[in-house]
Amino acid sequence: MPQFAKSLEGITGSAIRDLFKLLCAGDVTSFGGGNPSASSFPVSQIKNILDELIEEKGPELLQYAATEGYAPLRAAVSEHMLKPRGVFAPDSCILPTTGSSQAIDLICRAYIDPGDAVLVESPTFLGALQTIRISGAKLVSVPGDAEGVLPDELERLMALHRPKLFYCIPTFQNPSGRTLGLARRKRIAELAQAYDVLVVEDDPYYALRYRGEEVAPIKSFDADDHVMLLNSFSKTMSPGMRVGVAVGPADALRKMVILKQGCDAITPPLMQAVAAEFLARGLMPAQLARIRPEYARRLDAMLDAIDAHFPAACVRTKPEGGLFVWIECPGLDTLALLPRATCEAKVAYIPGVHFYAEADAPRHTLRLNFSGCPIEDIPAGLERLGNLMKDELARGS
Amino acid sequence: MPQFAKSLEGITGSAIRDLFKLLCAGDVTSFGGGNPSASSFPVSQIKNILDELIEEKGPELLQYAATEGYAPLRAAVSEHMLKPRGVFAPDSCILPTTGSSQAIDLICRAYIDPGDAVLVESPTFLGALQTIRISGAKLVSVPGDAEGVLPDELERLMALHRPKLFYCIPTFQNPSGRTLGLARRKRIAELAQAYDVLVVEDDPYYALRYRGEEVAPIKSFDADDHVMLLNSFSKTMSPGMRVGVAVGPADALRKMVILKQGCDAITPPLMQAVAAEFLARGLMPAQLARIRPEYARRLDAMLDAIDAHFPAACVRTKPEGGLFVWIECPGLDTLALLPRATCEAKVAYIPGVHFYAEADAPRHTLRLNFSGCPIEDIPAGLERLGNLMKDELARGS
Repeated sequence: MPQFAKSLEGITGSAIRDLFKLLCAGDVTSFGGGNPSASSFPVSQIKNILDELIEEKGPELLQYAATEGYAPLRAAVSEHMLKPRGVFAPDSCILPTTGSSQAIDLICRAYIDPGDAVLVESPTFLGALQTIRISGAKLVSVPGDAEGVLPDELERLMALHRPKLFYCIPTFQNPSGRTLGLARRKRIAELAQAYDVLVVEDDPYYALRYRGEEVAPIKSFDADDHVMLLNSFSKTMSPGMRVGVAVGPADALRKMVILKQGCDAITPPLMQAVAAEFLARGLMPAQLARIRPEYARRLDAMLDAIDAHFPAACVRTKPEGGLFVWIECPGLDTLALLPRATCEAKVAYIPGVHFYAEADAPRHTLRLNFSGCPIEDIPAGLERLGNLMKDELARGS
Repeated sequence: MPQFAKSLEGITGSAIRDLFKLLCAGDVTSFGGGNPSASSFPVSQIKNILDELIEEKGPELLQYAATEGYAPLRAAVSEHMLKPRGVFAPDSCILPTTGSSQAIDLICRAYIDPGDAVLVESPTFLGALQTIRISGAKLVSVPGDAEGVLPDELERLMALHRPKLFYCIPTFQNPSGRTLGLARRKRIAELAQAYDVLVVEDDPYYALRYRGEEVAPIKSFDADDHVMLLNSFSKTMSPGMRVGVAVGPADALRKMVILKQGCDAITPPLMQAVAAEFLARGLMPAQLARIRPEYARRLDAMLDAIDAHFPAACVRTKPEGGLFVWIECPGLDTLALLPRATCEAKVAYIPGVHFYAEADAPRHTLRLNFSGCPIEDIPAGLERLGNLMKDELARGS
């Protein structure tokens, strides 16, 4: 066989997938994935919409179509997802993508030559790390605190590395659950303009808020077209539909369209149309009202169990929404602990080390997901994990 | 705004899309696209299958899933599309993709470093040319005749350029309509092994045969895992579903899975499942029996009209299937003629120049599509085009 591209050397598969091969047979309670609850999907509404769409415009929706996307979806996103959040974008600035993950890939391919710098939060979403690595970029981590990245650090690193992109998840961040404060968002928009950096604002969780006040997106403070906002239907409606949307500078979207022509050419029009109809029929508010309380209960069950059972030295985040809680446990190597966790305690999580761009990533963090696990399994699973962590700490001391 | 990637310099949008901006307002008969006829889509069967799938396993099909693809689709493809053609592949050698175009992109990204050589037929599919160009490859054209590429030329160019890939469309080629003969297919499989080249056998049209004998795919002669066969549901069922499938070496597919994790992560499971059910229920033979005669009539109408109305100097191919006829018209610049064709003769086609990798591409060829145009419009449209071509030739002489 011919040799693979040199540019892919060192690129391995998703750490999550590899980790889960570690899962022993048997009844493991998994806090490891990032899946929404299957019970959150509006199955019968999707079925009805699909029926009507195929009845009314089946041939159109089964045909090739413009790479630029299904016009009613762009209109519905603008009306229902952007304007209410202070983002006013013409159609030429809205591009449906095959999930937000495709948008990240297209942006990287549009901007990155090997060696270009990309700033990311520390920690950040491991899927984005993989996509950015594949593009050949040099990843640079921006430190943060409980309110997200530190703007002064961001400015320093922008000045130092002159990056093309800053990738961030401002709301209920994956993996930390943190939300970037309003003042920092405004400052980030200003810094993007000052240092000529495109901010990739990946915001798939914003609608999953269980308490506290909504915060306007960075994009709403973007005076000079330096922010690309990514939204998705994956967490609110269905990830299997693979419908996301990128909202940003028209020039950048044109380049992304050219690249998308050479990838999948179009996001399946039927899937785009289901998302569009769901929004246009005004079904999203009731959908969110249905799923938020259930997720809030799971989050609270998780926080209570952590507080009750985890070692005293552990620090956890206090997410107001999203799908994840982040734990720091000084003295514990969470990667080394995982085999015992899955095989002895019958609990899975993601070791935090996978969410860092830096080579010397801290080993004492872990991510817990509460959306993919039945609420009744949360307290006992976390009690087992907490006891294992205490045991491991006692061994080590 | 930050600068776009240098690697994309010179990469422009799809020539087809740009060309169609030339279309004057009014009633233009288009032989320019490559769309299947919307009347060919099995709309009500797709509707019924979707209904049942969502009823029976909606939550599963709306959830995240393995990047490796929906297992029943891989099984159905093996049973109904591969085994009958002499291709025996385990599941680990079958990867569903978001259209075949995604497969081409993933293969290029898996293998190509900038400057690596890729051999292509001359002419070849312009979408593939764009995708391969984006990868940074050096494109090298392999000359052919009425039976496809010339194996001795292929061998010479393999020895000279040591390419990683040879991309070809063996059956009812886009744009030429030609079919590669059996002996040449065997020879190509041997050359791939001898020169350690991966043959990318893009075969979306094979089932659209209207006359003549079926020819086994190159993959069926692949003794040593040097052929990646791409098939698609786009021409036989629905392009909007975006379901294709790559069949090839397990190592290569594993690399493509890693890359796909960083693009769209999964091909929408609902779309994969519809394709799987359509095959598993045995609906494809009747579907093909329904659409082939209609396409055959359109092809014959096109060939008759070309023979009746085009200039005597024109040479056309004699396709036994597929969607395209290819014309060579010595003395005519088909790119320069296009504005007159669309505005005066009210007929669109694709100038052949866009289908060549070489810089000094011939200017006297054009591609005609017969699937996207009602049969009753074919004779009159081609008469107008033929008259225009004669007029243009008379002007030039």
